[in-house]
Amino acid sequence: MNKPVRVTITGAAGQIGYQLAFRIASGQMLGKNQPIILQLLEITPALTALKGVVMELEDCAFPTLNNVIATDDANTAFKNSDYGLLVGAMPRGPGMERKDLLEANAKIFTQQGKAINDHANKNIRVLVVGNPANTNALIASSNAPDISSENFTAMTRLDHNRAKAYISKKIGVTSNDILKMTIWGNHSATQYPDIDHVLCEGQPIVGKVTQEWLESDFIPTIQQRGAEIIKARGASSAASAASAAIDHMHNWVNGTPKDDWVSMGIPSDGSYDISPGIVYSFPVRCNKGKYQIVHDLKLSEFSKKRMQITEQELREERKAIEDLL
Amino acid sequence: MNKPVRVTITGAAGQIGYQLAFRIASGQMLGKNQPIILQLLEITPALTALKGVVMELEDCAFPTLNNVIATDDANTAFKNSDYGLLVGAMPRGPGMERKDLLEANAKIFTQQGKAINDHANKNIRVLVVGNPANTNALIASSNAPDISSENFTAMTRLDHNRAKAYISKKIGVTSNDILKMTIWGNHSATQYPDIDHVLCEGQPIVGKVTQEWLESDFIPTIQQRGAEIIKARGASSAASAASAAIDHMHNWVNGTPKDDWVSMGIPSDGSYDISPGIVYSFPVRCNKGKYQIVHDLKLSEFSKKRMQITEQELREERKAIEDLL
Repeated sequence: MNKPVRVTITGAAGQIGYQLAFRIASGQMLGKNQPIILQLLEITPALTALKGVVMELEDCAFPTLNNVIATDDANTAFKNSDYGLLVGAMPRGPGMERKDLLEANAKIFTQQGKAINDHANKNIRVLVVGNPANTNALIASSNAPDISSENFTAMTRLDHNRAKAYISKKIGVTSNDILKMTIWGNHSATQYPDIDHVLCEGQPIVGKVTQEWLESDFIPTIQQRGAEIIKARGASSAASAASAAIDHMHNWVNGTPKDDWVSMGIPSDGSYDISPGIVYSFPVRCNKGKYQIVHDLKLSEFSKKRMQITEQELREERKAIEDLL
Repeated sequence: MNKPVRVTITGAAGQIGYQLAFRIASGQMLGKNQPIILQLLEITPALTALKGVVMELEDCAFPTLNNVIATDDANTAFKNSDYGLLVGAMPRGPGMERKDLLEANAKIFTQQGKAINDHANKNIRVLVVGNPANTNALIASSNAPDISSENFTAMTRLDHNRAKAYISKKIGVTSNDILKMTIWGNHSATQYPDIDHVLCEGQPIVGKVTQEWLESDFIPTIQQRGAEIIKARGASSAASAASAAIDHMHNWVNGTPKDDWVSMGIPSDGSYDISPGIVYSFPVRCNKGKYQIVHDLKLSEFSKKRMQITEQELREERKAIEDLL
C-alpha cells in the first residue's frame, strides 16, 4: 500500500457527489493500492445529509478508504489536498439570467480557488464538474496564483463518452471499438463533438455516416443529451457524470492508451487558434501524470466554424465575470 | 475477454439499483475481463425513469458493458440470466402490519422465483436485497424447484460491513484489520452481530471491549444502523447497500481470503441447531464459486440465546407466508 492521498469532493451530498464518493473510495479512480482520505465539502444546510453519506462510506468497509472528513469550510476541505473534484455549484433558478448564474458561481469558485491556493498541495489536480464548468475552472485557477494553471481542468469527458457511445450504437459496435473522439470547446450546448479523426475498428468513420446525419442528428443529440436525461429521469445526469469524472482523473494520472486520446477542458495555449485566457476542451494524450494537446489534426472549414462558435461563447462567459479574475 | 454473462437487477431505477447498475457495469462485481449484459426490471410506472438509467449507462461507455435490456416483464428480465440481484421490494406503507408487508412481498418474489425457474440459467446465483430479504429469498427459492436452493441467498453483508467498520472505529484501526466478523440470523433488528471470533490485527478482540459496551452499544447500533442513516440522509441506505451487494457476489464467485470469512443469508442445513427451512445468515467461506458454512465455532450461552431469538423471528415470518411455499 502507498502513502494515503487526500481527495476533496465539493457538493458531496448531492446526486453526483453521492455516486462519486463511493466509486472513488472503492479504488476506481486511483487504484486498489492507493489509500485515500476523503475530504467532503458541503454547504451548511446539507451537513446533516453529508453526515449520512459519511456513515454509509464507513459502512462500506472499503479497504482503500483510510478516513473521511466532512466540513462546510473550504479551507478545511482543501487542506493538503492532492485531488480536487469541484462538483458543487449553484443551479440556474427561476428567472435567473445567464449572467446571474455566472456571477453566483463565480463567487463559489473564487472562494474555493483561494482555499486551494492557500491550503492544498501545490501539485493538486483539480477537475471542475459544476457548471458552467469551463469558466468556473478559469475563476478557480485565477484565484490560485501559486498553483500552475495547467492543474485546473474542466470536465468534457461526459460529452466525450456520450459521443463514443452514441456513434457506436449507430454503427453497431461497442464503444471499445471507437477511438479518437474529440470534444472541442465549452461543456454546454455549443460544444463541438468532432468525428473527423474517429477510428471505428481501426478504420476512419467519416465515410460510414452522412453529413446530414452528423449535422441534424449526431451533433444536436450530444449537445442536448443532458436535457434528454432530465426528461426521462426527472433529475439530471448523476451516475454518468460521476463515472466521467473518474475516467478523467484516472486517465490524467495513469495515462491514455497509446492508440487513443481523450477530451479535457484545459487552459488554452493558443493551439488551433483558440485564444489563450479561456478553458477550452481539446483532444489530449496523458502520460506520467501530464496531459498534452494532440497537435496537427487537419480541420475542415465546418469544424473551424463550430470551434469558433463555442470559443466565442467562452469569451463571452469570461467577459461576464472578468472583474473577478 | 470472456463470453458475456447476463446480470439481472430488479428495482433497477430505485436508489440502490441506480448505484448498483453502474458499479456492476464498470466491472467491480465480476472483474475487468468479464463482459456483461445488464437486464433491468422495473414496475411499469418506473419504465420512463429506467429509460433514463439506460441512457446514462450507455453514456458511461464502460468497456465491460455489452448491452442493456430494460423491461417490466420478469420473464424477459431473467431470460438466460447468470446472476440475479433482487433489489425491488414493496416498502412498508402507513398502517401496514408486518404480515401485510410479508404478503405483499411474497407475491413479488413468488412471481420472480417462477420466472427464474422457467427462464434463467440453471446455475444462476441469486442475491435478495429487497426486504424482508431472508424470507423473500425463501419464497423465490420455493417457487424455483428446478434450481438448487443453495443458489438463493439473502444479504447480510451490509450488516457484516457495518459491524467491521464500527468496531474498527472503536478500537482505532482500519476495517482491514478486523477479520472473522459474523452476522447470525435475519437481516432485521433481531440479527446477532457476533464478535466472539473476531480477530483485530491477529489478536482476539473479546478482551478489548466490555460486555456492557457489547450489549448496550455495539449490538443495538448495528441492529439500528439503517434507521440512523435514514435520520441523517432523509433516505434509506443506498450506496452502502449496493456496495455490500457487490461484495457478496464478488466473494461468492471469487472466493474469500484464506484467513477470513463473510456473512451470507443461506438456506439453513441444520448447522448450529438452526432449523432447516429458513434462510439464515451464517459465517461462510467461499471457494471455486461455492460457499460453505464455517463449522465448529464455540458458542457462548449469550450467543446461543441471541441466535435463537433471530431464528424464532424467521420461523414466524415463514409461518406468515407458508401457504405460498
